[in-house]
Amino acid sequence: MLSMLEDSLKVKSRALIILLVAAVLCASNVVSKPHGLYPQSQTPAKALVERLGYPPDTKLLIVHADDLGMAHSINAATTKAFETGLVNSGSIMVPCPWLLEIAAYARANPNADLGLHLTLTSEWKLYRWGPVLSRDHVSSLFDNGGYLYPTESEAAAHINPKEAEAEIRAQIERAKSFGIQPTHLDSHMGTLYQTKELFEVLIRVGRDNKLPVRIAREQFATHPYLKDLVGPNDVVIDNVISIEPSVTPEGWSNYYVDAIKKLSPGVSEMIVHLAYDNEEMKNVAFEHPNWGSEWRQRDFQFVTSDSFRDALRANNIKLITWRELGKLVR
Amino acid sequence: MLSMLEDSLKVKSRALIILLVAAVLCASNVVSKPHGLYPQSQTPAKALVERLGYPPDTKLLIVHADDLGMAHSINAATTKAFETGLVNSGSIMVPCPWLLEIAAYARANPNADLGLHLTLTSEWKLYRWGPVLSRDHVSSLFDNGGYLYPTESEAAAHINPKEAEAEIRAQIERAKSFGIQPTHLDSHMGTLYQTKELFEVLIRVGRDNKLPVRIAREQFATHPYLKDLVGPNDVVIDNVISIEPSVTPEGWSNYYVDAIKKLSPGVSEMIVHLAYDNEEMKNVAFEHPNWGSEWRQRDFQFVTSDSFRDALRANNIKLITWRELGKLVR
Repeated sequence: MLSMLEDSLKVKSRALIILLVAAVLCASNVVSKPHGLYPQSQTPAKALVERLGYPPDTKLLIVHADDLGMAHSINAATTKAFETGLVNSGSIMVPCPWLLEIAAYARANPNADLGLHLTLTSEWKLYRWGPVLSRDHVSSLFDNGGYLYPTESEAAAHINPKEAEAEIRAQIERAKSFGIQPTHLDSHMGTLYQTKELFEVLIRVGRDNKLPVRIAREQFATHPYLKDLVGPNDVVIDNVISIEPSVTPEGWSNYYVDAIKKLSPGVSEMIVHLAYDNEEMKNVAFEHPNWGSEWRQRDFQFVTSDSFRDALRANNIKLITWRELGKLVR
Repeated sequence: MLSMLEDSLKVKSRALIILLVAAVLCASNVVSKPHGLYPQSQTPAKALVERLGYPPDTKLLIVHADDLGMAHSINAATTKAFETGLVNSGSIMVPCPWLLEIAAYARANPNADLGLHLTLTSEWKLYRWGPVLSRDHVSSLFDNGGYLYPTESEAAAHINPKEAEAEIRAQIERAKSFGIQPTHLDSHMGTLYQTKELFEVLIRVGRDNKLPVRIAREQFATHPYLKDLVGPNDVVIDNVISIEPSVTPEGWSNYYVDAIKKLSPGVSEMIVHLAYDNEEMKNVAFEHPNWGSEWRQRDFQFVTSDSFRDALRANNIKLITWRELGKLVR
């Protein structure tokens, strides 16, 4: 009897342990999320605008200039545009030649909303840069010429994600060593969204640094793994305004005004590329009209125009920065 | 007797061996040159102009633009000045951001007289560069910010000559990998003339690559070790024309015209720094007026002026390039 009881207890306790383990696994979602760190079901129902304390029909917009540090022309035009108060955010490319100029600006303007435009590509023909780390540590990041790969697809095809992680952590450290306190992270030319493994790196480094990462809901359709990897505490913006090569120079202002008019409620980011169309920028962008020198001058002209200010006002758009979004991830 | 004779012969033969060894050592100058590779007495009496096949009273001049590759403004102004035919030589800074633009020029103009301006310093405030090799290999070349040291004296005080040698050999290899076939070597900001050990590196790398190195007779007074290290097959130019910060903007043209008028016979080099005084160059040279943006525009204006052409003609000056001098060291 005693031994039967013992056996029965053993069976019961074994069953209990199995049940307990299963319960714990379910609760922690270890078994229910084979593809990611956070399952879809855990995404909070609350919209990002509501998490920020605004009514759900609010239209919030970050006006963000990419590529700071890449060239003097870009630094000069972007910091000039910051003076309008309408362009209110930007991100910095740490490996680029003009880093120290924008770092000096960041130190002199500690409230500026400046993030890091993590850089794993070097896209121009005559003006290029390599990574922060050396070939001994991140050999997969180097092309044959000893620079970063020119396109995001070549970069994604060759880069070892562990080396990408070491490099972007080194870029963050280097930025901080020059007094830049980044408010957010994004990825130059979108290289870190190109594969699941690279995006895991970006999101992990963002979380470790308690920094929001540029992720837009619209990316979920083209990059399905993004959705699986995003968790309830991450920031996912609702809309992006970004001009495309198909827009003619004459249609530039209309494109933006129209996009602002059609903007849905939620948190949106308008991504612009500002520079003066001068000798430096023309030659940086040698034989590369898309996102080139005239393109950037057109962007500068629009964001510093009355049309832009009027469009924001007429459509009841409220500006917000990554610094404010960052409070959600800390 | 026999044994005495043997002893005597032994003594004599020992004395003979000692004498022979001494004679050989003297003839090869091993004992008479404790400080250098070639003693002064071996310097050939023949002047450099005569080695080049010209009468000793000939005035030969290289008009040389430094700092190619450093900035687009410098590349653009210098290659424009090359079109006059009066500026007929230049040297390239391999670690700098605009290397690929001047490398493309070098490939398109294979007869251009382009050397390497070996670079161990990075002198500006907001626009800097590091070495070609990584910290793992040449840690003594890096300042605290991860760039090359800003001045030649700081660089010379910190640099391990072995690491300097590895770096400048890597700069030569990198230049060649982009299709630059250097005609000569010199040293940005003169860092490689600052100590005997660094100059030994420069002269050894020049000889190994069968390239002439910029050495001017006037340097012997300020850097005595140069004379000891220079050999009969090296090229030592006779005079240098190089403008100084004490010259006023108004006196610029007069300084050069006067220097050309007073030029002694022999092989001379006029070293200029050309750029357009534009937004890029003004900001490269931020808070650094000497050898700055306006300075370089003044140099550009002089070397492309009729005054310069007239002064060369009036003083019977014949232009020569480093390519021609290089034939003496091959």
